[in-house]
Amino acid sequence: MVTGMDKDAFVLRAIGHVESSLNDPGSAPKQGYEGAPPAWLVFDDGVKEGLTDLQVGDEVIVLTWLDRASREVLRTHPRGDLSQPQRGVFSTRSPHRPNPIGLHRVRIVAIENVQRLQVLDLEALDGTPIIDVKPVLVRSADS
Amino acid sequence: MVTGMDKDAFVLRAIGHVESSLNDPGSAPKQGYEGAPPAWLVFDDGVKEGLTDLQVGDEVIVLTWLDRASREVLRTHPRGDLSQPQRGVFSTRSPHRPNPIGLHRVRIVAIENVQRLQVLDLEALDGTPIIDVKPVLVRSADS
Repeated sequence: MVTGMDKDAFVLRAIGHVESSLNDPGSAPKQGYEGAPPAWLVFDDGVKEGLTDLQVGDEVIVLTWLDRASREVLRTHPRGDLSQPQRGVFSTRSPHRPNPIGLHRVRIVAIENVQRLQVLDLEALDGTPIIDVKPVLVRSADS
Repeated sequence: MVTGMDKDAFVLRAIGHVESSLNDPGSAPKQGYEGAPPAWLVFDDGVKEGLTDLQVGDEVIVLTWLDRASREVLRTHPRGDLSQPQRGVFSTRSPHRPNPIGLHRVRIVAIENVQRLQVLDLEALDGTPIIDVKPVLVRSADS
């Protein structure tokens, strides 16, 4: 039950989930290009119409809700390396942050039945909720 | 009041707001590099500790909650151009989508008192809630 909702609180709803062989936060790669296995984005029936123009070969930005992260963290050692000084979380990609939204640039390599997209370079854990997909813009600086 | 919260719903909380001269969704640029004026990111006291390592000159990704968007839209004419065929929203950058999160790549050009960052290339409207800030990674493909 959520109480105390106010004008500065917003409800996200998952539009699908990640299927991946990654299960352990400790051993998962920090970034997708650091050895993530192929994974599937599996979308809910209710958003099927929104998926129809995605194509094999496209690079997209996937936003996820990092449901195993802590929201209480404002300072952290980058990449969990205790030998590095702590930094404010907003200058790191740590999953632990007030709104733990994951930002992943991936490439679509297969599409099954519109609602299942296989992607490369996704470091999200199995079961992670998906909240949005956006195209990478042609101007590379805008991704 | 929010009811019916379940395991696939998550509560975002604003960590600050945009101050911009942009007020009108109709005339605002579609993308920040298409003529957005300088804007300020103004953060809440509660997240100040998380901001300390951001610096003038840094390029960062700002995530916002597009509070004037419709969440019921799954198909749209790209860039609002009715001469183009409708597409699924997940292959467009339309603000109208099930979870209207804005993704903006901006450059920090001034910092006042840790909590106020002036940035270039932000097309968000005045008052838009900020939900996260992340560094652009050195590997350009990952932004």
